[in-house]
Amino acid sequence: MYTLYYSPGTASMAVHQALLEIGAPYELKLVDFDNDAQHDAEYLKLNPHGVVPTLVVDGKPVVESAALLMLLAERHPEAGLAPAIGSPERAAWLQWMVYLSNNLSATYRFWFYPMDLGTAEHVSHISTALQQRIADVWDNLDAHLSAHGPYLLGEQFSSADILLMMLMRWSRNMPRKSAQWPALAKLADLVRARDSWKELNQLERLSGW
Amino acid sequence: MYTLYYSPGTASMAVHQALLEIGAPYELKLVDFDNDAQHDAEYLKLNPHGVVPTLVVDGKPVVESAALLMLLAERHPEAGLAPAIGSPERAAWLQWMVYLSNNLSATYRFWFYPMDLGTAEHVSHISTALQQRIADVWDNLDAHLSAHGPYLLGEQFSSADILLMMLMRWSRNMPRKSAQWPALAKLADLVRARDSWKELNQLERLSGW
Ligand SMILES: N[C@@H](CCC(=O)N[C@@H](CS)C(=O)NCC(=O)O)C(=O)O
Ligand SMILES: N[C@@H](CCC(=O)N[C@@H](CS)C(=O)NCC(=O)O)C(=O)O
Repeated sequence: MYTLYYSPGTASMAVHQALLEIGAPYELKLVDFDNDAQHDAEYLKLNPHGVVPTLVVDGKPVVESAALLMLLAERHPEAGLAPAIGSPERAAWLQWMVYLSNNLSATYRFWFYPMDLGTAEHVSHISTALQQRIADVWDNLDAHLSAHGPYLLGEQFSSADILLMMLMRWSRNMPRKSAQWPALAKLADLVRARDSWKELNQLERLSGW
Repeated sequence: MYTLYYSPGTASMAVHQALLEIGAPYELKLVDFDNDAQHDAEYLKLNPHGVVPTLVVDGKPVVESAALLMLLAERHPEAGLAPAIGSPERAAWLQWMVYLSNNLSATYRFWFYPMDLGTAEHVSHISTALQQRIADVWDNLDAHLSAHGPYLLGEQFSSADILLMMLMRWSRNMPRKSAQWPALAKLADLVRARDSWKELNQLERLSGW
C-alpha cells in the first residue's frame, strides 16, 4: 500500500499515473496549496522542501518524482514501465529519466516560481531565456522521436513517457507549446489514449489539455 | 571498454571517479573547452547539448552524469556503488541521485552560465537567490547526514556520495562553501581518503580542494 501526497496537475501527477498503470493499491492525500498546506510543520517532516510529490513506501517518505517513477518501475517489473536491467534499452531509459528531470523540471521550476530567483516577476530577458531552454529541449526530443519514436524508447512505452507527458502538459499556457512539435504531439496522442491517463484526469479533475 | 568524454573538474568528474572505483578499463577523451570543442559538429552528434560528460557504452553515447552513475552501478554490481534492487536502502539511493541532480546540478548551471538566463552577468538578487537555493540544499543534506550519516546512505558509501562530492567541490569559490556545514565536511574527508579520489585528482590534474 502506497500513500501519495499530491496536488492536482503538479509534479505528483506522473507518480499518480504510474500507480494507475501498475494497478497497485494506494491512498491519495491532498496537499492543499490554496491553504499553503505544503508548508505545514507535519508535511515538512515528510518533505523538508515543502513540495509534492511525497510517496510513502513501506512506511517511509520518498521524494522526487523521477526517483519515484524509477522506484515504482523496479518494484513492479510486471507493469513493464522500464526495460530490464542489462537490456540494451536500459541506458537510454536512465538517460531520459535524468535528462527530463534535469533539463525540464528544474527550468520549469524557475519559470513557475520567480521567487526562487529572488524576484516577484521575471524581467523579459529571463522569461525569454527560460522559454528558449525549454524549446531547445523540445527540439532535441522531437528530433530523437522523429528518428527513433514514437516513444522515447522506440516502440516501447515506459515511465520516461509518463514523465515527459507531465512536462509537456505544463507548457500549455506558455507562448510555445510542446504540442507544436509534431513528434511530441504524436507521443502525447498515444499517451492520451491510455486508460491510466483518462483515469488520472478524472481523479485529479484535470481539464484543458 | 568505456570511452569518457570529459573536461577536468566538470560534471564528467563524478563519472570518472565511478570508473576508477569500478576498475573497469576506459579511455579518456578530452573535450577542450578552451577551444570550444564541446560545440564541434562531431561532438554535437554524440551530445546535442554540447556538454560533458558523454560516456560511450557498447558503442552508443549516453549522457547525463547522474544517469551514467546509475548505469555504471547496475553494470558493475560487485563494485557496491548502489544498494541492490529490493533492498531497504534502494529508495533512498534513487531519491538522492535525483535530488542532487535536480536541486544542485541545475541550480549550479544557472550560477555558472548566466547566459542560460539571457544575461552576461547575474544581477545581485539573482546571484543571492541561486546561492540561497544551494544553501537550502546544504542545510537539508547536513541535517540528514548529522542524523543518519556519515554517508548519504548511512554506513554505506555509494555513487550518491560521488555525485555529492563533485557538487560540493563546485562551491569552493562561492561565498558560502559546502564544507562550512560540518556533516558535509566530514563526508568530504571520508571521500578524500579513497584511492579513487586521489587517482582522479592526479589524472585530471585538479588542485585547490
Ligand atoms: N523536483 C521535484 C519538484 C517538486 C516541485 O517543485 N513541486 C511543486 C509543484 S509542481 C510544488 O510542490 N510546489 C509547491 C511550492 O513550492 O510551494 C519533483 O520532481 O518531485
Ligand atoms: N546535466 C548535465 C550537465 C552537463 C553540463 O552542464 N556540463 C558542463 C560542465 S559542468 C559543460 O559541459 N559545459 C560546457 C558548455 O556548456 O559549453 C550532466 O550532469 O551531465
